[in-house]
Amino acid sequence: MRNLKLQVEYDGTNYCGWQVQRGQKSQRHKKLSIQEVIEKTLRKILQEKVNLIASGRTDAGVHAKAQVANFKTNSAIPLEKLQKALNGLLPDDITISKIEEAALNFHSRFAVKSKLYRYTILNRPFPSAFLANTAYFYPYPLNVKIMQKEARKLLGRHNFKAFQASDIQKRNPIKTIKKIEVAKEKDLIYIDIEADGFLYNMVRNIVGTLIEIGRTRFSSESLNRILYSKDRRLAGPTAPAKGLCLLKVRY
Amino acid sequence: MRNLKLQVEYDGTNYCGWQVQRGQKSQRHKKLSIQEVIEKTLRKILQEKVNLIASGRTDAGVHAKAQVANFKTNSAIPLEKLQKALNGLLPDDITISKIEEAALNFHSRFAVKSKLYRYTILNRPFPSAFLANTAYFYPYPLNVKIMQKEARKLLGRHNFKAFQASDIQKRNPIKTIKKIEVAKEKDLIYIDIEADGFLYNMVRNIVGTLIEIGRTRFSSESLNRILYSKDRRLAGPTAPAKGLCLLKVRY
Repeated sequence: MRNLKLQVEYDGTNYCGWQVQRGQKSQRHKKLSIQEVIEKTLRKILQEKVNLIASGRTDAGVHAKAQVANFKTNSAIPLEKLQKALNGLLPDDITISKIEEAALNFHSRFAVKSKLYRYTILNRPFPSAFLANTAYFYPYPLNVKIMQKEARKLLGRHNFKAFQASDIQKRNPIKTIKKIEVAKEKDLIYIDIEADGFLYNMVRNIVGTLIEIGRTRFSSESLNRILYSKDRRLAGPTAPAKGLCLLKVRY
Repeated sequence: MRNLKLQVEYDGTNYCGWQVQRGQKSQRHKKLSIQEVIEKTLRKILQEKVNLIASGRTDAGVHAKAQVANFKTNSAIPLEKLQKALNGLLPDDITISKIEEAALNFHSRFAVKSKLYRYTILNRPFPSAFLANTAYFYPYPLNVKIMQKEARKLLGRHNFKAFQASDIQKRNPIKTIKKIEVAKEKDLIYIDIEADGFLYNMVRNIVGTLIEIGRTRFSSESLNRILYSKDRRLAGPTAPAKGLCLLKVRY
Protein backbone atom coordinates (compact mmCIF):
# COMPACT_ATOMS: atom_id res chain seq x y z
CA MET A 1 0.00 0.00 0.00
CA ARG A 2 1.32 3.45 -0.94
CA ASN A 3 0.02 6.90 -0.07
CA LEU A 4 0.52 9.24 -3.04
CA LYS A 5 0.43 13.01 -2.74
CA LEU A 6 -0.54 15.03 -5.79
CA GLN A 7 -0.03 18.72 -6.45
CA VAL A 8 -2.81 19.87 -8.75
CA GLU A 9 -3.14 23.02 -10.86
CA TYR A 10 -6.58 23.79 -12.25
CA ASP A 11 -8.62 26.42 -13.98
CA GLY A 12 -11.93 25.98 -12.18
CA THR A 13 -14.06 27.77 -14.79
CA ASN A 14 -15.64 24.65 -16.24
CA TYR A 15 -16.21 22.77 -12.97
CA CYS A 16 -18.71 22.79 -10.13
CA GLY A 17 -15.77 23.03 -7.72
CA TRP A 18 -13.29 20.57 -6.24
CA GLN A 19 -16.16 18.51 -4.92
CA VAL A 20 -19.89 18.43 -5.61
CA GLN A 21 -21.08 21.46 -3.65
CA ARG A 22 -23.16 21.57 -0.52
CA GLY A 23 -26.78 20.72 -1.09
CA GLN A 24 -26.19 19.84 -4.73
CA LYS A 25 -26.45 16.46 -6.35
CA SER A 26 -23.87 15.82 -9.03
CA GLN A 27 -26.46 14.32 -11.39
CA ARG A 28 -28.54 17.48 -11.50
CA HIS A 29 -25.62 19.50 -12.78
CA LYS A 30 -23.91 19.41 -16.09
CA LYS A 31 -20.57 20.48 -14.63
CA LEU A 32 -18.34 17.82 -13.15
CA SER A 33 -16.26 18.27 -10.04
CA ILE A 34 -12.47 18.35 -10.34
CA GLN A 35 -12.20 15.54 -7.81
CA GLU A 36 -14.38 13.16 -9.80
CA VAL A 37 -12.52 13.90 -13.03
CA ILE A 38 -9.17 13.06 -11.40
CA GLU A 39 -10.58 10.01 -9.59
CA LYS A 40 -12.00 8.61 -12.83
CA THR A 41 -8.71 9.17 -14.62
CA LEU A 42 -6.77 7.50 -11.81
CA ARG A 43 -9.14 4.55 -11.91
CA LYS A 44 -8.58 4.22 -15.64
CA ILE A 45 -4.81 4.21 -15.22
CA LEU A 46 -4.53 2.14 -12.03
CA GLN A 47 -7.48 -0.17 -12.66
CA GLU A 48 -8.63 0.31 -9.07
CA LYS A 49 -11.04 2.63 -7.32
CA VAL A 50 -9.34 5.51 -5.54
CA ASN A 51 -10.55 7.91 -2.89
CA LEU A 52 -8.95 11.30 -3.37
CA ILE A 53 -8.65 13.56 -0.30
CA ALA A 54 -7.86 17.23 -0.90
CA SER A 55 -6.61 19.94 1.47
CA GLY A 56 -10.10 21.38 1.26
CA ARG A 57 -12.82 22.18 -1.22
CA THR A 58 -12.72 25.02 -3.65
CA ASP A 59 -15.98 26.46 -4.97
CA ALA A 60 -17.27 26.50 -8.52
CA GLY A 61 -15.11 28.81 -10.63
CA VAL A 62 -12.28 29.01 -8.07
CA HIS A 63 -8.82 28.04 -9.31
CA ALA A 64 -5.75 26.40 -7.82
CA LYS A 65 -2.09 26.81 -8.57
CA ALA A 66 -1.14 24.08 -6.10
CA GLN A 67 -4.03 22.19 -4.53
CA VAL A 68 -2.80 19.13 -2.62
CA ALA A 69 -4.61 15.79 -2.61
CA ASN A 70 -3.65 12.27 -1.59
CA PHE A 71 -4.93 8.75 -2.20
CA LYS A 72 -3.94 5.24 -1.25
CA THR A 73 -3.14 2.65 -3.86
CA ASN A 74 -1.82 -0.87 -4.19
CA SER A 75 -0.31 -0.02 -7.55
CA ALA A 76 3.47 -0.06 -7.94
CA ILE A 77 3.42 2.28 -10.95
CA PRO A 78 6.49 4.58 -11.05
CA LEU A 79 5.58 8.16 -10.09
CA GLU A 80 6.93 9.77 -13.23
CA LYS A 81 4.97 7.36 -15.38
CA LEU A 82 1.79 8.01 -13.40
CA GLN A 83 2.24 11.78 -13.74
CA LYS A 84 2.69 11.53 -17.51
CA ALA A 85 -0.31 9.22 -17.87
CA LEU A 86 -2.49 11.57 -15.79
CA ASN A 87 -1.45 14.68 -17.69
CA GLY A 88 -1.98 12.86 -20.95
CA LEU A 89 -5.53 11.79 -20.06
CA LEU A 90 -6.80 14.69 -17.95
CA PRO A 91 -8.51 17.64 -19.66
CA ASP A 92 -6.23 20.61 -20.43
CA ASP A 93 -7.56 22.68 -17.54
CA ILE A 94 -6.41 20.20 -14.88
CA THR A 95 -2.70 19.50 -14.51
CA ILE A 96 -0.71 17.36 -12.09
CA SER A 97 2.40 19.40 -11.35
CA LYS A 98 3.96 17.02 -8.83
CA ILE A 99 3.53 13.52 -7.44
CA GLU A 100 5.39 12.19 -4.43
CA GLU A 101 5.10 9.34 -1.99
CA ALA A 102 3.88 10.44 1.45
CA ALA A 103 3.89 8.71 4.81
CA LEU A 104 1.03 6.24 5.07
CA ASN A 105 -0.66 8.37 7.74
CA PHE A 106 -0.42 11.65 5.75
CA HIS A 107 -3.87 13.19 5.29
CA SER A 108 -4.17 16.19 2.93
CA ARG A 109 -6.90 17.86 4.97
CA PHE A 110 -6.07 17.07 8.59
CA ALA A 111 -2.35 17.84 8.21
CA VAL A 112 -2.81 21.37 6.80
CA LYS A 113 -0.82 24.03 8.73
CA SER A 114 -1.95 26.93 6.59
CA LYS A 115 -3.31 27.82 3.19
CA LEU A 116 -2.45 30.78 1.02
CA TYR A 117 -5.08 32.22 -1.30
CA ARG A 118 -4.65 34.96 -3.88
CA TYR A 119 -7.49 37.14 -5.12
CA THR A 120 -6.84 38.99 -8.40
CA ILE A 121 -8.65 42.17 -9.41
CA LEU A 122 -8.25 43.74 -12.85
CA ASN A 123 -8.64 47.42 -12.06
CA ARG A 124 -8.86 49.50 -15.24
CA PRO A 125 -11.66 50.88 -17.38
CA PHE A 126 -11.80 47.96 -19.86
CA PRO A 127 -11.69 44.18 -19.36
CA SER A 128 -9.04 41.71 -20.60
CA ALA A 129 -9.72 38.87 -23.01
CA PHE A 130 -6.96 36.82 -21.38
CA LEU A 131 -8.04 37.34 -17.77
CA ALA A 132 -11.78 36.91 -18.30
CA ASN A 133 -11.87 33.71 -16.19
CA THR A 134 -9.08 34.35 -13.70
CA ALA A 135 -9.52 37.93 -12.50
CA TYR A 136 -12.42 40.04 -11.26
CA PHE A 137 -12.81 42.98 -13.60
CA TYR A 138 -13.53 46.05 -11.48
CA PRO A 139 -13.52 49.24 -13.58
CA TYR A 140 -13.88 51.86 -10.80
CA PRO A 141 -10.86 53.51 -9.12
CA LEU A 142 -9.65 51.83 -5.94
CA ASN A 143 -7.46 53.43 -3.29
CA VAL A 144 -4.92 50.66 -2.80
CA LYS A 145 -3.09 52.41 0.06
CA ILE A 146 -6.21 52.50 2.20
CA MET A 147 -6.91 48.86 1.34
CA GLN A 148 -3.36 47.92 2.39
CA LYS A 149 -3.62 49.80 5.65
CA GLU A 150 -7.04 48.40 6.52
CA ALA A 151 -6.20 44.82 5.50
CA ARG A 152 -3.47 44.67 8.15
CA LYS A 153 -6.09 45.00 10.87
CA LEU A 154 -7.21 41.46 10.10
CA LEU A 155 -3.79 39.99 10.93
CA GLY A 156 -3.70 37.58 13.84
CA ARG A 157 -6.27 35.52 15.73
CA HIS A 158 -9.85 36.72 15.49
CA ASN A 159 -13.44 35.60 15.32
CA PHE A 160 -14.16 35.95 11.59
CA LYS A 161 -17.90 35.29 11.80
CA ALA A 162 -18.63 38.60 10.04
CA PHE A 163 -16.87 37.27 6.94
CA GLN A 164 -18.56 33.88 6.90
CA ALA A 165 -21.30 32.97 4.43
CA SER A 166 -24.52 33.10 6.39
CA ASP A 167 -26.05 29.87 5.09
CA ILE A 168 -23.64 27.45 6.68
CA GLN A 169 -23.45 24.92 9.53
CA LYS A 170 -21.61 25.85 12.69
CA ARG A 171 -17.88 25.71 12.76
CA ASN A 172 -15.29 27.37 14.91
CA PRO A 173 -15.08 30.96 13.60
CA ILE A 174 -11.75 31.61 15.33
CA LYS A 175 -8.98 31.65 12.74
CA THR A 176 -5.47 33.07 12.57
CA ILE A 177 -4.51 35.16 9.56
CA LYS A 178 -0.73 34.85 9.26
CA LYS A 179 -0.31 37.10 6.27
CA ILE A 180 -2.48 39.54 4.38
CA GLU A 181 -1.04 41.68 1.62
CA VAL A 182 -2.54 43.98 -0.96
CA ALA A 183 -0.18 44.60 -3.88
CA LYS A 184 -0.62 46.57 -7.08
CA GLU A 185 1.20 45.68 -10.32
CA LYS A 186 0.12 47.86 -13.22
CA ASP A 187 -3.62 47.21 -13.69
CA LEU A 188 -3.72 44.22 -11.34
CA ILE A 189 -4.39 44.21 -7.63
CA TYR A 190 -3.43 41.05 -5.76
CA ILE A 191 -4.83 40.30 -2.32
CA ASP A 192 -2.90 37.45 -0.67
CA ILE A 193 -4.31 35.91 2.51
CA GLU A 194 -2.67 33.10 4.44
CA ALA A 195 -4.45 31.56 7.41
CA ASP A 196 -4.53 28.36 9.44
CA GLY A 197 -8.08 27.86 8.23
CA PHE A 198 -10.87 29.64 6.41
CA LEU A 199 -14.60 29.91 6.94
CA TYR A 200 -16.90 29.38 3.98
CA ASN A 201 -16.48 32.30 1.53
CA MET A 202 -14.19 34.06 4.01
CA VAL A 203 -11.59 35.26 1.46
CA ARG A 204 -14.25 36.43 -0.98
CA ASN A 205 -16.12 38.28 1.77
CA ILE A 206 -12.94 39.97 3.01
CA VAL A 207 -12.09 40.97 -0.56
CA GLY A 208 -15.61 42.30 -1.15
CA THR A 209 -15.25 44.40 1.99
CA LEU A 210 -11.78 45.66 1.04
CA ILE A 211 -13.13 46.70 -2.35
CA GLU A 212 -15.88 48.76 -0.66
CA ILE A 213 -13.17 50.37 1.47
CA GLY A 214 -10.92 51.03 -1.57
CA ARG A 215 -13.89 52.55 -3.33
CA THR A 216 -14.37 54.69 -0.20
CA ARG A 217 -17.96 53.53 0.12
CA PHE A 218 -16.97 52.18 3.55
CA SER A 219 -15.02 54.50 5.85
CA SER A 220 -11.39 53.67 6.50
CA GLU A 221 -12.09 52.61 10.08
CA SER A 222 -14.92 50.28 9.17
CA LEU A 223 -12.96 47.04 9.02
CA ASN A 224 -12.44 46.79 12.77
CA ARG A 225 -16.07 47.61 13.35
CA ILE A 226 -17.23 44.89 10.93
CA LEU A 227 -14.78 42.35 12.38
CA TYR A 228 -15.84 42.93 15.98
CA SER A 229 -19.54 43.07 15.11
CA LYS A 230 -19.41 39.39 14.00
CA ASP A 231 -22.31 40.42 11.77
CA ARG A 232 -22.13 39.26 8.17
CA ARG A 233 -24.69 41.89 7.12
CA LEU A 234 -22.20 44.69 7.81
CA ALA A 235 -19.46 43.30 5.55
CA GLY A 236 -19.21 43.95 1.81
CA PRO A 237 -20.63 41.69 -0.91
CA THR A 238 -18.98 38.36 -1.73
CA ALA A 239 -16.42 38.94 -4.49
CA PRO A 240 -16.86 36.68 -7.55
CA ALA A 241 -15.33 33.19 -7.47
CA LYS A 242 -13.27 33.59 -10.63
CA GLY A 243 -10.77 35.99 -9.01
CA LEU A 244 -9.82 33.45 -6.35
CA CYS A 245 -6.91 30.99 -6.56
CA LEU A 246 -5.48 28.57 -3.99
CA LEU A 247 -1.76 29.33 -4.30
CA LYS A 248 -0.14 27.14 -1.69
CA VAL A 249 -0.93 24.62 1.05
CA ARG A 250 1.61 24.33 3.86
CA TYR A 251 2.06 21.20 5.99
CA MET B 1 -17.90 60.66 -41.60
CA ARG B 2 -15.39 59.47 -39.00
CA ASN B 3 -12.64 56.88 -39.25
CA LEU B 4 -12.36 55.01 -35.93
CA LYS B 5 -9.31 52.98 -34.96
CA LEU B 6 -9.77 50.12 -32.51
CA GLN B 7 -7.14 48.29 -30.49
CA VAL B 8 -8.40 44.75 -29.93
CA GLU B 9 -7.26 42.09 -27.46
CA TYR B 10 -8.49 38.54 -28.09
CA ASP B 11 -8.04 34.97 -27.03
CA GLY B 12 -8.37 33.26 -30.40
CA THR B 13 -9.11 29.78 -29.03
CA ASN B 14 -12.80 29.78 -29.86
CA TYR B 15 -12.59 31.45 -33.27
CA CYS B 16 -11.72 30.46 -36.81
CA GLY B 17 -9.28 33.38 -36.92
CA TRP B 18 -9.59 37.12 -37.48
CA GLN B 19 -11.30 36.46 -40.77
CA VAL B 20 -12.85 33.41 -42.35
CA GLN B 21 -9.78 31.50 -43.48
CA ARG B 22 -8.55 30.86 -46.99
CA GLY B 23 -10.61 28.32 -48.87
CA GLN B 24 -13.15 28.07 -46.08
CA LYS B 25 -16.74 29.17 -46.14
CA SER B 26 -17.98 30.62 -42.87
CA GLN B 27 -21.24 28.69 -43.04
CA ARG B 28 -19.52 25.32 -43.04
CA HIS B 29 -17.80 26.04 -39.77
CA LYS B 30 -19.22 26.31 -36.32
CA LYS B 31 -16.58 28.78 -35.23
CA LEU B 32 -17.11 32.44 -35.98
CA SER B 33 -14.40 34.84 -37.02
CA ILE B 34 -13.37 37.60 -34.65
CA GLN B 35 -14.02 40.18 -37.35
CA GLU B 36 -17.65 39.13 -37.86
CA VAL B 37 -18.32 39.10 -34.11
CA ILE B 38 -17.05 42.68 -33.75
CA GLU B 39 -18.79 43.85 -36.94
CA LYS B 40 -22.12 42.46 -35.74
CA THR B 41 -21.72 44.09 -32.35
CA LEU B 42 -20.83 47.42 -33.97
CA ARG B 43 -23.87 47.17 -36.19
CA LYS B 44 -26.06 46.54 -33.16
CA ILE B 45 -24.69 49.61 -31.36
CA LEU B 46 -24.40 52.01 -34.31
CA GLN B 47 -27.43 50.79 -36.28
CA GLU B 48 -25.38 50.82 -39.45
CA LYS B 49 -23.35 48.28 -41.37
CA VAL B 50 -19.61 48.61 -40.82
CA ASN B 51 -16.64 47.26 -42.70
CA LEU B 52 -13.80 46.48 -40.30
CA ILE B 53 -10.26 46.49 -41.71
CA ALA B 54 -7.52 44.90 -39.59
CA SER B 55 -3.73 45.19 -39.77
CA GLY B 56 -3.80 41.64 -41.09
CA ARG B 57 -5.41 38.28 -40.47
CA THR B 58 -4.54 36.00 -37.63
CA ASP B 59 -5.17 32.27 -37.98
CA ALA B 60 -7.53 30.07 -36.00
CA GLY B 61 -6.28 29.78 -32.42
CA VAL B 62 -3.84 32.71 -32.71
CA HIS B 63 -4.24 35.48 -30.14
CA ALA B 64 -3.74 39.24 -30.11
CA LYS B 65 -2.74 41.59 -27.35
CA ALA B 66 -3.16 44.62 -29.60
CA GLN B 67 -4.60 43.95 -33.02
CA VAL B 68 -5.52 47.19 -34.81
CA ALA B 69 -8.63 47.64 -36.95
CA ASN B 70 -10.46 50.62 -38.34
CA PHE B 71 -13.89 51.36 -39.78
CA LYS B 72 -15.78 54.35 -41.12
CA THR B 73 -18.99 55.52 -39.57
CA ASN B 74 -21.51 58.33 -39.73
CA SER B 75 -22.27 57.92 -36.06
CA ALA B 76 -21.38 60.72 -33.66
CA ILE B 77 -21.28 58.41 -30.63
CA PRO B 78 -18.65 59.48 -28.05
CA LEU B 79 -15.61 57.15 -28.11
CA GLU B 80 -15.76 56.26 -24.43
CA LYS B 81 -19.41 55.35 -24.70
CA LEU B 82 -18.76 53.20 -27.77
CA GLN B 83 -15.91 51.38 -26.01
CA LYS B 84 -18.07 50.62 -22.98
CA ALA B 85 -20.96 49.45 -25.15
CA LEU B 86 -18.66 47.19 -27.18
CA ASN B 87 -17.01 45.66 -24.12
CA GLY B 88 -20.41 45.16 -22.55
CA LEU B 89 -21.81 43.30 -25.57
CA LEU B 90 -18.76 41.44 -26.91
CA PRO B 91 -17.97 37.96 -25.59
CA ASP B 92 -15.43 37.85 -22.74
CA ASP B 93 -12.60 36.64 -24.99
CA ILE B 94 -12.68 39.77 -27.19
CA THR B 95 -11.89 43.13 -25.62
CA ILE B 96 -11.58 46.63 -27.05
CA SER B 97 -8.64 48.16 -25.20
CA LYS B 98 -8.59 51.49 -27.03
CA ILE B 99 -10.63 53.55 -29.50
CA GLU B 100 -9.41 56.68 -31.16
CA GLU B 101 -10.30 58.81 -34.11
CA ALA B 102 -7.90 58.44 -37.04
CA ALA B 103 -7.33 60.49 -40.16
CA LEU B 104 -9.95 59.72 -42.80
CA ASN B 105 -7.31 58.14 -45.04
CA PHE B 106 -5.83 55.89 -42.33
CA HIS B 107 -5.96 52.22 -43.40
CA SER B 108 -5.08 49.58 -40.78
CA ARG B 109 -3.44 47.25 -43.27
CA PHE B 110 -1.78 49.54 -45.81
CA ALA B 111 -0.27 51.84 -43.19
CA VAL B 112 1.53 49.11 -41.20
CA LYS B 113 5.24 49.82 -40.67
CA SER B 114 5.94 46.66 -38.70
CA LYS B 115 4.29 43.98 -36.60
CA LEU B 116 5.59 42.33 -33.47
CA TYR B 117 4.60 38.74 -32.72
CA ARG B 118 5.39 36.73 -29.61
CA TYR B 119 5.52 32.96 -29.54
CA THR B 120 5.31 31.36 -26.07
CA ILE B 121 6.64 27.90 -25.27
CA LEU B 122 6.02 26.21 -21.92
CA ASN B 123 9.20 24.17 -21.50
CA ARG B 124 8.93 21.83 -18.53
CA PRO B 125 7.96 18.18 -18.04
CA PHE B 126 4.28 18.84 -17.20
CA PRO B 127 1.67 21.15 -18.78
CA SER B 128 -0.13 24.13 -17.18
CA ALA B 129 -3.88 24.36 -16.66
CA PHE B 130 -3.69 28.13 -17.04
CA LEU B 131 -1.60 28.21 -20.20
CA ALA B 132 -3.36 25.40 -22.05
CA ASN B 133 -4.67 27.77 -24.75
CA THR B 134 -1.94 30.40 -24.87
CA ALA B 135 1.36 28.50 -24.84
CA TYR B 136 2.81 25.55 -26.71
CA PHE B 137 3.65 22.86 -24.16
CA TYR B 138 6.98 21.34 -25.15
CA PRO B 139 8.27 18.92 -22.50
CA TYR B 140 11.75 18.15 -23.92
CA PRO B 141 14.87 20.13 -22.94
CA LEU B 142 15.73 23.03 -25.24
CA ASN B 143 19.11 24.71 -25.48
CA VAL B 144 18.01 28.35 -25.35
CA LYS B 145 21.52 29.76 -25.90
CA ILE B 146 21.84 28.00 -29.24
CA MET B 147 18.34 29.17 -30.18
CA GLN B 148 19.29 32.77 -29.30
CA LYS B 149 22.50 32.63 -31.30
CA GLU B 150 20.86 31.05 -34.34
CA ALA B 151 17.80 33.29 -34.30
CA ARG B 152 20.00 36.35 -34.81
CA LYS B 153 20.98 35.06 -38.24
CA LEU B 154 17.50 35.88 -39.48
CA LEU B 155 17.87 39.59 -38.66
CA GLY B 156 17.68 41.92 -41.63
CA ARG B 157 16.38 41.70 -45.17
CA HIS B 158 16.09 38.20 -46.62
CA ASN B 159 14.05 35.99 -48.87
CA PHE B 160 12.00 34.01 -46.33
CA LYS B 161 10.49 31.55 -48.80
CA ALA B 162 11.84 28.61 -46.77
CA PHE B 163 9.58 29.66 -43.89
CA GLN B 164 6.43 30.20 -45.92
CA ALA B 165 3.53 27.76 -45.90
CA SER B 166 3.76 25.84 -49.15
CA ASP B 167 0.07 26.01 -50.08
CA ILE B 168 -0.16 29.69 -50.77
CA GLN B 169 -0.44 32.14 -53.67
CA LYS B 170 2.60 34.11 -54.71
CA ARG B 171 3.65 37.09 -52.71
CA ASN B 172 6.92 38.89 -52.34
CA PRO B 173 9.01 36.68 -50.02
CA ILE B 174 11.49 39.47 -49.25
CA LYS B 175 10.89 40.72 -45.73
CA THR B 176 12.96 42.59 -43.15
CA ILE B 177 13.17 41.19 -39.64
CA LYS B 178 13.89 44.18 -37.40
CA LYS B 179 14.07 42.29 -34.14
CA ILE B 180 14.25 38.66 -33.13
CA GLU B 181 14.75 37.70 -29.51
CA VAL B 182 14.61 34.44 -27.63
CA ALA B 183 14.16 34.94 -23.88
CA LYS B 184 13.74 32.46 -21.05
CA GLU B 185 11.78 33.28 -17.87
CA LYS B 186 11.51 30.30 -15.56
CA ASP B 187 9.62 27.61 -17.53
CA LEU B 188 8.61 29.94 -20.35
CA ILE B 189 10.49 30.67 -23.54
CA TYR B 190 9.40 33.75 -25.48
CA ILE B 191 10.34 34.22 -29.12
CA ASP B 192 9.64 37.79 -30.23
CA ILE B 193 9.82 38.60 -33.93
CA GLU B 194 9.25 42.03 -35.42
CA ALA B 195 9.20 42.48 -39.18
CA ASP B 196 7.87 44.84 -41.83
CA GLY B 197 5.71 41.98 -43.05
CA PHE B 198 5.22 38.25 -42.65
CA LEU B 199 4.60 35.41 -45.07
CA TYR B 200 1.84 32.94 -44.30
CA ASN B 201 2.83 30.87 -41.22
CA MET B 202 6.28 32.50 -41.22
CA VAL B 203 6.55 32.99 -37.46
CA ARG B 204 5.28 29.50 -36.69
CA ASN B 205 7.69 27.97 -39.22
CA ILE B 206 10.64 29.92 -37.81
CA VAL B 207 9.66 28.84 -34.29
CA GLY B 208 9.29 25.21 -35.37
CA THR B 209 12.78 25.39 -36.86
CA LEU B 210 14.27 27.06 -33.77
CA ILE B 211 12.75 24.32 -31.62
CA GLU B 212 14.46 21.65 -33.75
CA ILE B 213 17.71 23.57 -33.31
CA GLY B 214 17.19 23.93 -29.54
CA ARG B 215 16.44 20.24 -29.34
CA THR B 216 19.72 19.75 -31.27
CA ARG B 217 17.95 17.74 -33.92
CA PHE B 218 19.11 20.36 -36.41
CA SER B 219 22.76 21.38 -36.27
CA SER B 220 23.59 24.84 -35.00
CA GLU B 221 24.58 26.07 -38.46
CA SER B 222 21.44 24.83 -40.15
CA LEU B 223 19.43 28.05 -40.00
CA ASN B 224 21.52 29.83 -42.61
CA ARG B 225 21.39 26.78 -44.82
CA ILE B 226 17.59 26.58 -44.56
CA LEU B 227 17.17 30.32 -45.13
CA TYR B 228 19.33 30.37 -48.25
CA SER B 229 17.84 27.16 -49.63
CA LYS B 230 14.44 28.88 -49.94
CA ASP B 231 13.09 25.35 -49.55
CA ARG B 232 10.21 24.91 -47.09
CA ARG B 233 10.90 21.19 -46.88
CA LEU B 234 14.18 21.79 -45.07
CA ALA B 235 12.67 23.91 -42.28
CA GLY B 236 11.14 22.50 -39.09
CA PRO B 237 7.44 21.76 -38.58
CA THR B 238 4.91 24.55 -38.15
CA ALA B 239 4.58 25.31 -34.42
CA PRO B 240 0.98 25.18 -33.11
CA ALA B 241 -1.19 28.28 -33.47
CA LYS B 242 -2.06 28.60 -29.80
CA GLY B 243 1.46 29.76 -28.81
CA LEU B 244 1.28 32.76 -31.15
CA CYS B 245 0.16 36.25 -30.19
CA LEU B 246 0.16 39.53 -32.12
CA LEU B 247 1.69 41.88 -29.55
CA LYS B 248 1.97 45.20 -31.38
CA VAL B 249 1.34 46.87 -34.71
CA ARG B 250 3.46 49.90 -35.50
CA TYR B 251 2.38 52.65 -37.91
